[in-house]
Amino acid sequence: MIITSLDNPKIKYLSSLNKAKERKQEQKFIVEGKHLVDEAKKQNVLIEAYSIEEKEGYIQVTPSVMKKITNTNTLVSEIGLCTMLDKKELSNKLLLLDGVQDPGNMGALMRSAKAFGFDTIILGEGCVDIYNDKVIRSSQGAIFKLNFVTSNIKDFILSHKEYKIYGTNVVNGIPMEDVMKEGHLGIVLGNEGNGISKETSSVIEKNVYIPMEDTESLNVSVAGGILMYYLR
Amino acid sequence: MIITSLDNPKIKYLSSLNKAKERKQEQKFIVEGKHLVDEAKKQNVLIEAYSIEEKEGYIQVTPSVMKKITNTNTLVSEIGLCTMLDKKELSNKLLLLDGVQDPGNMGALMRSAKAFGFDTIILGEGCVDIYNDKVIRSSQGAIFKLNFVTSNIKDFILSHKEYKIYGTNVVNGIPMEDVMKEGHLGIVLGNEGNGISKETSSVIEKNVYIPMEDTESLNVSVAGGILMYYLR
Repeated sequence: MIITSLDNPKIKYLSSLNKAKERKQEQKFIVEGKHLVDEAKKQNVLIEAYSIEEKEGYIQVTPSVMKKITNTNTLVSEIGLCTMLDKKELSNKLLLLDGVQDPGNMGALMRSAKAFGFDTIILGEGCVDIYNDKVIRSSQGAIFKLNFVTSNIKDFILSHKEYKIYGTNVVNGIPMEDVMKEGHLGIVLGNEGNGISKETSSVIEKNVYIPMEDTESLNVSVAGGILMYYLR
Repeated sequence: MIITSLDNPKIKYLSSLNKAKERKQEQKFIVEGKHLVDEAKKQNVLIEAYSIEEKEGYIQVTPSVMKKITNTNTLVSEIGLCTMLDKKELSNKLLLLDGVQDPGNMGALMRSAKAFGFDTIILGEGCVDIYNDKVIRSSQGAIFKLNFVTSNIKDFILSHKEYKIYGTNVVNGIPMEDVMKEGHLGIVLGNEGNGISKETSSVIEKNVYIPMEDTESLNVSVAGGILMYYLR
Protein backbone atom coordinates (compact mmCIF):
# COMPACT_ATOMS: atom_id res chain seq x y z
CA MET A 1 0.00 0.00 0.00
CA ILE A 2 1.29 3.40 -0.93
CA ILE A 3 -0.49 6.72 -0.57
CA THR A 4 -0.37 8.52 -3.91
CA SER A 5 -3.17 11.09 -3.59
CA LEU A 6 -2.51 14.63 -2.40
CA ASP A 7 -6.18 14.72 -1.36
CA ASN A 8 -5.94 11.79 1.03
CA PRO A 9 -7.43 13.05 4.33
CA LYS A 10 -4.47 11.75 6.33
CA ILE A 11 -2.07 13.70 4.12
CA LYS A 12 -4.19 16.82 4.38
CA TYR A 13 -4.15 16.44 8.15
CA LEU A 14 -0.36 16.05 8.29
CA SER A 15 0.09 19.04 5.99
CA SER A 16 -2.14 21.18 8.22
CA LEU A 17 0.39 20.65 11.05
CA ASN A 18 2.75 23.07 9.31
CA LYS A 19 0.71 25.77 11.01
CA ALA A 20 1.49 26.56 14.67
CA LYS A 21 -2.21 27.04 15.42
CA GLU A 22 -3.14 23.59 14.16
CA ARG A 23 -0.26 21.99 16.05
CA LYS A 24 -1.45 23.60 19.24
CA GLN A 25 -5.06 22.57 18.74
CA GLU A 26 -4.21 18.98 17.83
CA GLN A 27 -1.30 18.68 20.28
CA LYS A 28 0.65 16.98 17.50
CA PHE A 29 3.73 17.86 15.50
CA ILE A 30 5.97 16.49 12.76
CA VAL A 31 9.65 15.61 12.81
CA GLU A 32 11.76 15.16 9.70
CA GLY A 33 14.58 12.73 8.97
CA LYS A 34 15.59 9.29 10.22
CA HIS A 35 17.52 10.52 13.26
CA LEU A 36 14.55 12.42 14.70
CA VAL A 37 12.00 9.72 13.82
CA ASP A 38 14.14 7.14 15.64
CA GLU A 39 14.55 9.47 18.61
CA ALA A 40 10.78 10.13 18.76
CA LYS A 41 10.17 6.37 18.81
CA LYS A 42 12.69 5.91 21.62
CA GLN A 43 10.97 8.65 23.64
CA ASN A 44 7.51 7.12 23.08
CA VAL A 45 6.01 10.11 21.29
CA LEU A 46 5.85 8.65 17.80
CA ILE A 47 2.31 7.95 16.52
CA GLU A 48 3.06 7.03 12.91
CA ALA A 49 5.99 7.23 10.51
CA TYR A 50 5.96 7.87 6.76
CA SER A 51 8.63 7.10 4.19
CA ILE A 52 9.07 7.52 0.44
CA GLU A 53 10.47 3.99 0.40
CA GLU A 54 8.86 0.67 1.26
CA LYS A 55 10.03 0.06 4.79
CA GLU A 56 8.82 -2.00 7.74
CA GLY A 57 6.88 0.07 10.27
CA TYR A 58 6.43 2.97 7.85
CA ILE A 59 3.48 4.07 5.77
CA GLN A 60 4.76 4.57 2.23
CA VAL A 61 3.95 7.74 0.28
CA THR A 62 5.07 9.10 -3.08
CA PRO A 63 7.68 11.90 -3.21
CA SER A 64 5.04 14.47 -4.21
CA VAL A 65 2.86 13.45 -1.25
CA MET A 66 5.90 13.79 1.04
CA LYS A 67 6.54 17.30 -0.27
CA LYS A 68 2.92 18.18 0.41
CA ILE A 69 3.26 16.95 4.01
CA THR A 70 6.43 18.90 4.71
CA ASN A 71 5.40 21.91 2.63
CA THR A 72 8.90 22.27 1.18
CA ASN A 73 10.62 21.78 -2.14
CA THR A 74 13.45 19.76 -0.68
CA LEU A 75 12.49 16.12 -0.42
CA VAL A 76 12.72 14.53 3.03
CA SER A 77 12.80 10.74 2.91
CA GLU A 78 10.96 10.11 6.16
CA ILE A 79 8.86 11.95 8.72
CA GLY A 80 7.15 11.08 11.97
CA LEU A 81 3.85 12.25 13.43
CA CYS A 82 4.41 12.90 17.14
CA THR A 83 2.30 13.76 20.14
CA MET A 84 3.21 16.69 22.38
CA LEU A 85 4.38 15.63 25.80
CA ASP A 86 2.49 16.10 29.03
CA LYS A 87 4.09 18.39 31.56
CA LYS A 88 6.19 16.77 34.23
CA GLU A 89 7.33 18.21 37.53
CA LEU A 90 9.56 21.26 37.40
CA SER A 91 13.25 20.41 37.55
CA ASN A 92 15.58 21.99 40.13
CA LYS A 93 17.13 24.14 37.44
CA LEU A 94 15.04 26.16 35.04
CA LEU A 95 15.72 28.05 31.84
CA LEU A 96 13.27 30.92 31.36
CA LEU A 97 13.06 32.36 27.83
CA ASP A 98 11.61 35.84 27.56
CA GLY A 99 11.00 36.13 23.82
CA VAL A 100 13.74 34.08 22.12
CA GLN A 101 12.70 34.37 18.48
CA ASP A 102 15.35 32.73 16.35
CA PRO A 103 14.68 29.01 15.65
CA GLY A 104 18.39 28.18 15.61
CA ASN A 105 18.92 29.83 19.00
CA MET A 106 15.91 28.01 20.46
CA GLY A 107 17.15 24.64 19.21
CA ALA A 108 20.69 25.30 20.46
CA LEU A 109 19.37 26.33 23.89
CA MET A 110 17.40 23.07 24.14
CA ARG A 111 20.53 21.03 23.47
CA SER A 112 22.49 22.94 26.13
CA ALA A 113 19.61 22.75 28.63
CA LYS A 114 19.48 18.98 28.28
CA ALA A 115 23.26 18.59 28.37
CA PHE A 116 23.60 20.59 31.61
CA GLY A 117 20.51 19.42 33.54
CA PHE A 118 18.23 22.42 33.04
CA ASP A 119 15.42 20.00 32.24
CA THR A 120 12.50 22.44 32.33
CA ILE A 121 12.19 25.38 29.94
CA ILE A 122 9.67 28.15 30.63
CA LEU A 123 8.50 29.65 27.33
CA GLY A 124 7.45 33.27 27.73
CA GLU A 125 5.56 35.49 25.33
CA GLY A 126 7.24 36.19 22.01
CA CYS A 127 9.16 32.91 21.84
CA VAL A 128 9.23 31.05 18.53
CA ASP A 129 6.91 28.03 18.49
CA ILE A 130 9.09 25.12 19.63
CA TYR A 131 7.35 22.69 17.26
CA ASN A 132 8.47 24.79 14.27
CA ASP A 133 10.42 22.52 11.88
CA LYS A 134 13.62 24.58 12.12
CA VAL A 135 13.57 24.49 15.91
CA ILE A 136 13.05 20.72 15.94
CA ARG A 137 15.87 20.22 13.46
CA SER A 138 18.35 22.32 15.39
CA SER A 139 17.31 20.79 18.74
CA GLN A 140 18.71 17.46 17.44
CA GLY A 141 16.26 15.44 19.51
CA ALA A 142 16.73 17.35 22.79
CA ILE A 143 13.13 18.56 22.38
CA PHE A 144 11.85 15.08 23.28
CA LYS A 145 13.71 14.97 26.56
CA LEU A 146 12.77 18.31 28.07
CA ASN A 147 9.78 19.60 30.01
CA PHE A 148 8.14 22.76 28.64
CA VAL A 149 5.87 25.23 30.42
CA THR A 150 4.22 28.09 28.55
CA SER A 151 3.72 31.10 30.82
CA ASN A 152 4.18 34.83 31.09
CA ILE A 153 7.66 35.06 32.65
CA LYS A 154 6.75 37.71 35.23
CA ASP A 155 3.78 35.67 36.43
CA PHE A 156 5.88 32.54 36.60
CA ILE A 157 8.57 34.23 38.70
CA LEU A 158 6.00 35.71 41.10
CA SER A 159 4.30 32.36 41.63
CA HIS A 160 7.52 30.34 42.10
CA LYS A 161 9.26 32.08 44.96
CA GLU A 162 11.03 28.85 45.87
CA TYR A 163 13.31 29.44 42.87
CA LYS A 164 16.19 31.89 42.95
CA ILE A 165 15.84 33.56 39.56
CA TYR A 166 18.75 35.34 37.86
CA GLY A 167 18.35 37.77 34.99
CA THR A 168 20.99 38.49 32.37
CA ASN A 169 20.60 42.27 32.18
CA VAL A 170 23.93 44.09 32.17
CA VAL A 171 22.98 46.23 35.16
CA ASN A 172 23.22 45.29 38.79
CA GLY A 173 24.87 41.95 38.11
CA ILE A 174 27.19 39.55 39.86
CA PRO A 175 29.76 37.43 38.00
CA MET A 176 28.51 33.89 37.45
CA GLU A 177 31.31 32.51 39.63
CA ASP A 178 29.57 34.11 42.65
CA VAL A 179 26.21 32.39 42.12
CA MET A 180 25.30 29.64 44.58
CA LYS A 181 24.62 26.63 42.39
CA GLU A 182 22.77 24.62 44.98
CA GLY A 183 18.99 24.41 45.30
CA HIS A 184 16.28 25.73 43.04
CA LEU A 185 17.64 28.12 40.47
CA GLY A 186 16.55 29.72 37.20
CA ILE A 187 18.19 31.82 34.47
CA VAL A 188 16.21 34.28 32.35
CA LEU A 189 17.38 34.96 28.79
CA GLY A 190 15.84 37.72 26.72
CA ASN A 191 15.02 38.54 23.13
CA GLU A 192 17.86 38.64 20.55
CA GLY A 193 17.37 42.33 19.82
CA ASN A 194 15.80 43.79 22.93
CA GLY A 195 16.92 41.61 25.81
CA ILE A 196 14.67 40.92 28.79
CA SER A 197 11.38 42.87 28.75
CA LYS A 198 10.75 45.70 31.20
CA GLU A 199 7.83 43.78 32.68
CA THR A 200 10.02 40.77 33.44
CA SER A 201 12.95 42.91 34.62
CA SER A 202 10.66 44.51 37.23
CA VAL A 203 10.49 41.24 39.20
CA ILE A 204 14.12 40.17 38.81
CA GLU A 205 16.22 40.94 41.86
CA LYS A 206 19.61 39.78 40.70
CA ASN A 207 21.41 39.62 37.42
CA VAL A 208 24.35 37.43 36.51
CA TYR A 209 27.05 38.14 33.96
CA ILE A 210 29.79 36.30 32.10
CA PRO A 211 33.22 37.92 32.53
CA MET A 212 34.53 39.07 29.13
CA GLU A 213 36.25 41.88 27.24
CA ASP A 214 34.51 45.20 27.61
CA THR A 215 31.84 46.26 25.15
CA GLU A 216 31.51 42.80 23.65
CA SER A 217 28.31 40.80 23.79
CA LEU A 218 27.43 37.19 23.08
CA ASN A 219 24.79 35.45 21.02
CA VAL A 220 21.91 34.49 23.35
CA SER A 221 22.33 30.73 22.87
CA VAL A 222 26.06 30.98 23.55
CA ALA A 223 25.49 33.10 26.69
CA GLY A 224 22.84 30.59 27.84
CA GLY A 225 25.19 27.70 27.15
CA ILE A 226 28.04 29.19 29.17
CA LEU A 227 25.74 30.06 32.10
CA MET A 228 24.10 26.64 32.17
CA TYR A 229 27.49 24.93 31.91
CA TYR A 230 28.75 26.96 34.82
CA LEU A 231 25.68 26.62 37.02
CA ARG A 232 24.97 22.95 36.20
CA MET B 1 21.42 64.93 -4.77
CA ILE B 2 19.61 61.64 -4.62
CA ILE B 3 20.29 58.55 -6.72
CA THR B 4 17.03 57.42 -8.27
CA SER B 5 18.18 55.20 -11.15
CA LEU B 6 18.55 51.45 -10.80
CA ASP B 7 20.99 51.63 -13.69
CA ASN B 8 23.40 54.01 -11.96
CA PRO B 9 26.85 52.33 -12.25
CA LYS B 10 27.55 52.84 -8.54
CA ILE B 11 24.33 51.07 -7.64
CA LYS B 12 25.06 48.23 -10.04
CA TYR B 13 28.48 47.88 -8.44
CA LEU B 14 27.06 47.76 -4.91
CA SER B 15 24.44 45.24 -5.98
CA SER B 16 27.12 43.00 -7.52
CA LEU B 17 28.66 42.66 -4.04
CA ASN B 18 25.82 40.35 -3.07
CA LYS B 19 27.88 37.65 -4.76
CA ALA B 20 30.74 36.09 -2.76
CA LYS B 21 32.91 35.91 -5.89
CA GLU B 22 32.58 39.65 -6.55
CA ARG B 23 33.26 40.49 -2.90
CA LYS B 24 36.44 38.45 -3.02
CA GLN B 25 37.64 40.00 -6.26
CA GLU B 26 36.89 43.57 -5.16
CA GLN B 27 37.91 43.05 -1.50
CA LYS B 28 34.80 44.98 -0.55
CA PHE B 29 31.58 44.11 1.26
CA ILE B 30 28.37 45.69 2.45
CA VAL B 31 26.96 46.08 5.95
CA GLU B 32 23.33 46.85 6.70
CA GLY B 33 21.78 48.99 9.43
CA LYS B 34 22.89 51.97 11.48
CA HIS B 35 24.66 49.96 14.17
CA LEU B 36 26.97 48.22 11.70
CA VAL B 37 27.59 51.34 9.59
CA ASP B 38 28.65 53.21 12.73
CA GLU B 39 30.85 50.33 13.82
CA ALA B 40 32.49 50.14 10.37
CA LYS B 41 33.27 53.85 10.58
CA LYS B 42 34.78 53.44 14.04
CA GLN B 43 36.98 50.62 12.77
CA ASN B 44 38.11 52.65 9.72
CA VAL B 45 36.79 50.26 7.10
CA LEU B 46 33.90 52.38 5.84
CA ILE B 47 34.33 53.74 2.31
CA GLU B 48 30.88 55.24 1.74
CA ALA B 49 27.46 55.14 3.37
CA TYR B 50 24.03 55.24 1.73
CA SER B 51 20.69 56.14 3.25
CA ILE B 52 17.08 56.41 2.09
CA GLU B 53 16.89 59.67 4.04
CA GLU B 54 18.74 62.93 3.55
CA LYS B 55 21.49 62.71 6.12
CA GLU B 56 24.89 64.30 6.61
CA GLY B 57 27.72 62.04 5.46
CA TYR B 58 25.41 59.75 3.54
CA ILE B 59 24.63 59.45 -0.14
CA GLN B 60 20.86 59.48 -0.49
CA VAL B 61 19.07 56.85 -2.59
CA THR B 62 15.41 56.02 -3.18
CA PRO B 63 13.86 53.00 -1.41
CA SER B 64 13.75 51.02 -4.68
CA VAL B 65 17.44 51.72 -5.27
CA MET B 66 18.18 50.56 -1.71
CA LYS B 67 16.30 47.34 -2.34
CA LYS B 68 18.34 46.80 -5.49
CA ILE B 69 21.58 47.26 -3.52
CA THR B 70 20.63 44.83 -0.76
CA ASN B 71 18.84 42.43 -3.10
CA THR B 72 16.01 41.92 -0.59
CA ASN B 73 12.36 42.83 -0.29
CA THR B 74 12.73 44.16 3.22
CA LEU B 75 13.81 47.77 3.18
CA VAL B 76 16.99 48.63 5.05
CA SER B 77 17.34 52.33 5.81
CA GLU B 78 21.10 52.55 5.55
CA ILE B 79 24.08 50.53 4.31
CA GLY B 80 27.82 50.96 4.24
CA LEU B 81 30.38 49.96 1.63
CA CYS B 82 33.40 48.55 3.47
CA THR B 83 36.86 47.39 2.61
CA MET B 84 38.14 44.01 3.75
CA LEU B 85 40.85 44.22 6.36
CA ASP B 86 44.48 43.36 5.85
CA LYS B 87 45.81 40.48 7.86
CA LYS B 88 47.49 41.29 11.12
CA GLU B 89 49.80 39.12 13.18
CA LEU B 90 48.36 35.89 14.56
CA SER B 91 47.03 36.24 18.10
CA ASN B 92 48.16 33.93 20.90
CA LYS B 93 44.83 32.14 20.83
CA LEU B 94 43.33 30.89 17.60
CA LEU B 95 39.93 29.58 16.56
CA LEU B 96 40.18 27.17 13.61
CA LEU B 97 36.96 26.47 11.74
CA ASP B 98 36.91 23.31 9.66
CA GLY B 99 33.78 23.82 7.56
CA VAL B 100 31.33 25.80 9.74
CA GLN B 101 28.48 26.34 7.29
CA ASP B 102 25.64 28.04 9.12
CA PRO B 103 25.78 31.87 8.96
CA GLY B 104 24.23 32.20 12.45
CA ASN B 105 26.85 29.89 13.94
CA MET B 106 29.66 31.75 12.17
CA GLY B 107 28.42 35.12 13.46
CA ALA B 108 27.96 33.81 16.99
CA LEU B 109 31.47 32.31 16.97
CA MET B 110 32.92 35.68 15.93
CA ARG B 111 31.23 37.41 18.87
CA SER B 112 32.55 34.81 21.32
CA ALA B 113 36.03 34.86 19.78
CA LYS B 114 36.23 38.62 20.24
CA ALA B 115 34.76 38.51 23.75
CA PHE B 116 37.27 35.91 24.95
CA GLY B 117 40.44 37.05 23.19
CA PHE B 118 40.62 34.53 20.35
CA ASP B 119 41.40 37.38 18.00
CA THR B 120 42.42 35.34 14.95
CA ILE B 121 40.06 32.97 13.15
CA ILE B 122 41.41 30.46 10.62
CA LEU B 123 38.77 29.77 7.99
CA GLY B 124 39.15 26.29 6.51
CA GLU B 125 37.53 24.82 3.41
CA GLY B 126 33.75 24.56 3.44
CA CYS B 127 33.18 27.55 5.73
CA VAL B 128 30.40 29.98 4.84
CA ASP B 129 31.71 33.23 3.33
CA ILE B 130 32.18 35.58 6.28
CA TYR B 131 31.07 38.61 4.25
CA ASN B 132 27.66 37.01 3.65
CA ASP B 133 24.96 39.43 4.90
CA LYS B 134 23.57 36.97 7.47
CA VAL B 135 27.01 36.34 8.95
CA ILE B 136 27.71 40.07 9.21
CA ARG B 137 24.34 40.69 10.84
CA SER B 138 24.76 37.96 13.44
CA SER B 139 28.39 38.95 14.14
CA GLN B 140 27.05 42.26 15.49
CA GLY B 141 30.19 44.12 14.53
CA ALA B 142 32.69 41.59 15.89
CA ILE B 143 33.71 40.92 12.27
CA PHE B 144 35.49 44.32 12.16
CA LYS B 145 37.64 43.57 15.16
CA LEU B 146 38.99 40.15 14.27
CA ASN B 147 41.84 38.89 12.13
CA PHE B 148 40.93 36.26 9.50
CA VAL B 149 43.19 33.81 7.70
CA THR B 150 41.87 31.58 4.92
CA SER B 151 43.75 28.28 4.80
CA ASN B 152 43.35 24.55 4.61
CA ILE B 153 43.25 23.59 8.31
CA LYS B 154 45.61 20.63 8.03
CA ASP B 155 48.21 22.75 6.22
CA PHE B 156 47.85 25.51 8.78
CA ILE B 157 48.37 23.14 11.71
CA LEU B 158 51.44 21.55 10.09
CA SER B 159 53.04 24.92 9.41
CA HIS B 160 52.35 26.40 12.87
CA LYS B 161 53.96 23.95 15.25
CA GLU B 162 54.41 26.71 17.83
CA TYR B 163 50.66 26.43 18.56
CA LYS B 164 49.22 23.67 20.70
CA ILE B 165 46.13 22.73 18.69
CA TYR B 166 43.15 20.94 20.28
CA GLY B 167 40.45 19.18 18.31
CA THR B 168 36.90 18.65 19.50
CA ASN B 169 36.43 15.07 18.35
CA VAL B 170 34.80 12.88 21.00
CA VAL B 171 37.62 10.35 20.93
CA ASN B 172 40.89 10.53 22.79
CA GLY B 173 39.96 13.69 24.63
CA ILE B 174 40.84 15.42 27.87
CA PRO B 175 38.32 17.53 29.81
CA MET B 176 38.79 21.24 29.16
CA GLU B 177 39.74 21.82 32.80
CA ASP B 178 42.96 19.90 32.14
CA VAL B 179 44.13 22.08 29.26
CA MET B 180 47.08 24.39 29.94
CA LYS B 181 45.78 27.84 29.04
CA GLU B 182 49.12 29.52 28.79
CA GLY B 183 51.04 30.14 25.59
CA HIS B 184 50.02 29.64 21.98
CA LEU B 185 46.84 27.63 21.71
CA GLY B 186 44.17 26.83 19.11
CA ILE B 187 40.78 25.10 19.10
CA VAL B 188 39.43 23.35 16.00
CA LEU B 189 35.66 23.21 15.51
CA GLY B 190 34.12 21.10 12.75
CA ASN B 191 31.14 21.11 10.43
CA GLU B 192 27.63 21.14 11.93
CA GLY B 193 26.71 17.75 10.50
CA ASN B 194 29.99 15.93 10.06
CA GLY B 195 32.38 17.38 12.62
CA ILE B 196 36.09 17.75 11.92
CA SER B 197 37.22 16.27 8.58
CA LYS B 198 39.35 13.12 8.48
CA GLU B 199 42.15 15.06 6.82
CA THR B 200 42.25 17.59 9.66
CA SER B 201 41.82 14.92 12.35
CA SER B 202 44.91 13.14 11.02
CA VAL B 203 47.16 15.97 12.28
CA ILE B 204 45.39 16.63 15.60
CA GLU B 205 47.15 15.04 18.54
CA LYS B 206 44.81 15.96 21.35
CA ASN B 207 41.10 16.55 21.68
CA VAL B 208 39.30 18.48 24.38
CA TYR B 209 35.77 17.93 25.62
CA ILE B 210 33.15 19.75 27.70
CA PRO B 211 31.87 17.67 30.63
CA MET B 212 28.12 17.05 30.22
CA GLU B 213 25.35 14.47 30.46
CA ASP B 214 26.02 11.35 28.42
CA THR B 215 24.82 11.13 24.84
CA GLU B 216 24.04 14.83 24.59
CA SER B 217 25.77 17.14 22.17
CA LEU B 218 25.96 20.89 21.78
CA ASN B 219 25.48 23.29 18.91
CA VAL B 220 28.91 24.14 17.47
CA SER B 221 28.75 27.84 18.37
CA VAL B 222 27.75 27.01 21.95
CA ALA B 223 30.53 24.43 22.27
CA GLY B 224 33.00 26.95 20.85
CA GLY B 225 31.72 29.63 23.24
CA ILE B 226 32.14 27.44 26.31
CA LEU B 227 35.63 26.32 25.26
CA MET B 228 36.80 29.85 24.47
CA TYR B 229 35.34 31.15 27.73
CA TYR B 230 37.16 28.46 29.65
CA LEU B 231 40.49 28.75 27.83
CA ARG B 232 40.52 32.55 27.58
